[in-house]
Amino acid sequence: MKLLEDRIRRDGKVCEGNILRVDSFLNHQIDPALMQALAEEFHRLYGDRKIDKVLTVEASGIAIAIMVALSFGVPLVFAKKAKSKNIDNENVYSADVVSFTHGTVNKVIISKEFLHAGENVLLIDDFLANGQAMLGLMDVVAQAGATVAGIGIMVEKSYQKGRALLEERGVRVESLARVASMDAETGIRFVGE
Amino acid sequence: MKLLEDRIRRDGKVCEGNILRVDSFLNHQIDPALMQALAEEFHRLYGDRKIDKVLTVEASGIAIAIMVALSFGVPLVFAKKAKSKNIDNENVYSADVVSFTHGTVNKVIISKEFLHAGENVLLIDDFLANGQAMLGLMDVVAQAGATVAGIGIMVEKSYQKGRALLEERGVRVESLARVASMDAETGIRFVGE
Repeated sequence: MKLLEDRIRRDGKVCEGNILRVDSFLNHQIDPALMQALAEEFHRLYGDRKIDKVLTVEASGIAIAIMVALSFGVPLVFAKKAKSKNIDNENVYSADVVSFTHGTVNKVIISKEFLHAGENVLLIDDFLANGQAMLGLMDVVAQAGATVAGIGIMVEKSYQKGRALLEERGVRVESLARVASMDAETGIRFVGE
Repeated sequence: MKLLEDRIRRDGKVCEGNILRVDSFLNHQIDPALMQALAEEFHRLYGDRKIDKVLTVEASGIAIAIMVALSFGVPLVFAKKAKSKNIDNENVYSADVVSFTHGTVNKVIISKEFLHAGENVLLIDDFLANGQAMLGLMDVVAQAGATVAGIGIMVEKSYQKGRALLEERGVRVESLARVASMDAETGIRFVGE
């Protein structure tokens, strides 16, 4: 999506260690008008599917996900990150999420009250890299007997394996900006350029 | 605000230990149309003030705060919770936030890039009880040389000391639902009833 690619090129920063910083408009300071425009794009992309619920993970996915939920007229549920190993499995669905960046394993949990068999769930997140957070949410959705209707991502790092892992499981992935490569000197190249 | 009070009475649950659960529409599953209506009410209440930025704390304040930021046409910044004691004070503003519920002290941090001297900042959060999170944000805003234009809260526990602590510091507090008392048997009473 050109709007987001242009914004990333203008305001994103490629830092040491090939880290893409978009925290001036996506995930620390957030531009709400941009979120609204991106939410409308997700609504256009998935408008052909029946969506009963939008699901994300706290914290930085919430801003885009609430706008997407508004555009579909359905509730948002956000999974919580739990550090504790003692999960109340009677009342929540949970899944492990490996963070390669931090070398940690966190659990994501969702109350059983808010995810039901037969529901069609749209997963939304700000970033897709190794896909572990989305795999965790897919696991939780499966535990509930619900169905993943699709995945919507703002910024995909296409040189990492997340998309392949998700598509292997037969799920549709729509990313609004797909970073093919980046370099502090030469800048960002998107898929298709 | 009657819309929110009615919703709390309908879908809120008063549990053992006088805990008010509103996680079916406010802070685990979230009703986006309700958030939009509440954001418009905050915009009406603070429409007379110059607002340059909306500020909240992750995670459950983000959904309402992004809607408020959209209604004012200004950026949202969300403070991050940092467990680490090693804060990079060269690049961030930080403040301690005591949690009486959990008996812990967390730091909230905001990058210095996203808060500037002279800005008028509207603080938004889902709950106000002891006011510690809002005091932490006020501290951070003061460090930046910015000004708190006001505070907007969805649900205030008016039997706790948060509002008094904030008003003592001369800041205006607008809460859309003010819980005067609650009881698992007799239900919820709002201020003014």
